[in-house]
Amino acid sequence: MAAGVRCGIKKSGKSDLGLIVCPTGAKAAAVFTTNTITSAAVKVSKEHIKSANISAVVVNSGNANTCTGQVGIKNAIKMCSETAKQIEEDPHSVLVASTGVIGKQLPIKKIVTGISKAAAKLSTSSKAGLDFAKAIMTTDTKPKQAFRRIEISGKDVTIAGATKGAGMIAPNMATTLCFITTDVAISKPLLGRVLKAAIGNSLNKLTVDGHQSTNDTTIILASGLAGNRPITSQCPRYKRFAKALAEVCDDLVRQMALDAEGATRMFRVMVRGASTKADAAKAARAVADYPLVKCAVHGGDPNWGRIICAVGSAGVKLNPNKLSCKLGDITVFKNGTAKKFDAKKASKVVSQTEHTITVDLGVGNISDFCYGCDLSAEYVKINAEYHT
Amino acid sequence: MAAGVRCGIKKSGKSDLGLIVCPTGAKAAAVFTTNTITSAAVKVSKEHIKSANISAVVVNSGNANTCTGQVGIKNAIKMCSETAKQIEEDPHSVLVASTGVIGKQLPIKKIVTGISKAAAKLSTSSKAGLDFAKAIMTTDTKPKQAFRRIEISGKDVTIAGATKGAGMIAPNMATTLCFITTDVAISKPLLGRVLKAAIGNSLNKLTVDGHQSTNDTTIILASGLAGNRPITSQCPRYKRFAKALAEVCDDLVRQMALDAEGATRMFRVMVRGASTKADAAKAARAVADYPLVKCAVHGGDPNWGRIICAVGSAGVKLNPNKLSCKLGDITVFKNGTAKKFDAKKASKVVSQTEHTITVDLGVGNISDFCYGCDLSAEYVKINAEYHT
Repeated sequence: MAAGVRCGIKKSGKSDLGLIVCPTGAKAAAVFTTNTITSAAVKVSKEHIKSANISAVVVNSGNANTCTGQVGIKNAIKMCSETAKQIEEDPHSVLVASTGVIGKQLPIKKIVTGISKAAAKLSTSSKAGLDFAKAIMTTDTKPKQAFRRIEISGKDVTIAGATKGAGMIAPNMATTLCFITTDVAISKPLLGRVLKAAIGNSLNKLTVDGHQSTNDTTIILASGLAGNRPITSQCPRYKRFAKALAEVCDDLVRQMALDAEGATRMFRVMVRGASTKADAAKAARAVADYPLVKCAVHGGDPNWGRIICAVGSAGVKLNPNKLSCKLGDITVFKNGTAKKFDAKKASKVVSQTEHTITVDLGVGNISDFCYGCDLSAEYVKINAEYHT
Repeated sequence: MAAGVRCGIKKSGKSDLGLIVCPTGAKAAAVFTTNTITSAAVKVSKEHIKSANISAVVVNSGNANTCTGQVGIKNAIKMCSETAKQIEEDPHSVLVASTGVIGKQLPIKKIVTGISKAAAKLSTSSKAGLDFAKAIMTTDTKPKQAFRRIEISGKDVTIAGATKGAGMIAPNMATTLCFITTDVAISKPLLGRVLKAAIGNSLNKLTVDGHQSTNDTTIILASGLAGNRPITSQCPRYKRFAKALAEVCDDLVRQMALDAEGATRMFRVMVRGASTKADAAKAARAVADYPLVKCAVHGGDPNWGRIICAVGSAGVKLNPNKLSCKLGDITVFKNGTAKKFDAKKASKVVSQTEHTITVDLGVGNISDFCYGCDLSAEYVKINAEYHT
């Protein structure tokens, strides 16, 4: 069951409190930011996730509850205990997440009122799911949800996810706030493993502006209500579930990229021919993070020189005489030398809603990728005007 | 002697070829980019700098001569040999530098004509120095020059520098193109050492967009014509010269920061209380490179939460309970907790042409700094429209 309401944290009057409740209790797994400075919500959820059963997740937007000291911790605990009271469960079975401005105390009275309001509106309807997705938004222009339905041992299993963008996004352990619910029956250790794998190739691969936030949290709740034969090993059923979960996460991450602050298009950097996975990832990230590449994509400009510049300064092993680059299917640079290409066609490729930049380092056969989005004047406008 | 002329590389009709000549020969030192992919000019100059005496430096803008293969190398050598012919010197005594778009062959015929044109205009006048500074510009809006005059063993010693901005700028070994001439008498090893020290605290400390280019080159020529007692050890005379050279470099780097692509103001990030120099530098750079900090500075917004977020995700050792932050003299965050401050006053600080952000990591007594500039919509405009 889900709900999303307005409790009054945001001045804009938009909804800012979301609730997910699993009345029968759920197995849960989570991945948190690796930023040294973390939100009070992250600190509290890191404790509560140890509980065998999780009954609810409460989320506020409009305030990150970060750098707020002991008062912040008390408020995060209060959010859990108030939610627990509403649904008559143990406070330790409630997880909490926050997103928004750093360094301000939560308006906890408003939030307490909001929690009871949300609890009264809990529903399994798709409208309630959408309300939740809307309530966790910050500078997002639209809510982000994804669904998959698969069959496992003759039972219908559903996976539903909601996430928010749209800035302070970088790959590393976790990105932004993301909540996934499923009715699959699965053991807790495998739930943790399958979550890590799915976000490793999706949420962890998107960079918008190169720093992970202090609040990044991804939570998955599995109720087991589908009634499938429980997944307790990495069997074919596990693989089917893992694939569907990966699709949900990939769907969400693409929505995030295209709704990133000021973004008009996204791209995928595929690095091949690396001698290590770390080098491939580092080179891909260097290209996706490079403002000059992001601006060129914004302008629909096949400016591959900036891609090569980023790869060259990434500090990875490469062979300058074998280094190659493609924009979509168009080879623009091969074995260290510029290739003649149709600039109009290349510009069309770069101007698509999504295109792939392929770089071959020429020193091995290992590959990795990264998602990025363009950098627009709108990004600057949003972030110069988003005042503290 | 210097000159700057138009040879026709740039479509804009602006000057694009610069020449510095030291008829008596000069001791020289240089620092080059550490990007794995380097310009043909860098490759050739790395060889020629080994010569005992350097007689000239020839520089073109509008074309980087990078990713241009063997033809590019031949063209860079041709630039040296043509310059040598004009001044009747050995081609190996000529250094070459290029800046501009990557992946296109130089229009070498135009450049050869330009070299003879520049040689005919060589002069010691300040106008000639300014012409040179103009000829090396890319997206700079103004030429960048700095001068200092000091006395060493009773003789007047002059240091003059010219540099170009304005994008693809990041600290690491060298930044952009920078040319410094002096008449001081000094040994070659000490000239190399004093150059490294000076740029270590100036050019190497500025980040505009996080990647060093493929062409970064800083060259210093010392003619010895001042007639001072030659500097051959790290004596007080060396220190006096080092201080003046550092001032010239700091002057140039501030001009670069304020004329960075789209920049309207600059800032200095001072990290204190680190346990290592590397950590201090890394944290300072993480703040100065962070688009969200750069946007906040652009908006005159004392958004210190973004500073803390960048420091926290920099991967450096810090104590969250001792972490502190100041904007100018205003403490906004102390021992891990937000401080009340006058937002209007803080906004005034951030809106200055230059302000200092101080971060204390709370784990040691080592410090380092980094220069950055704001990120404006104009940066995006310049770089989305600068077409290949």
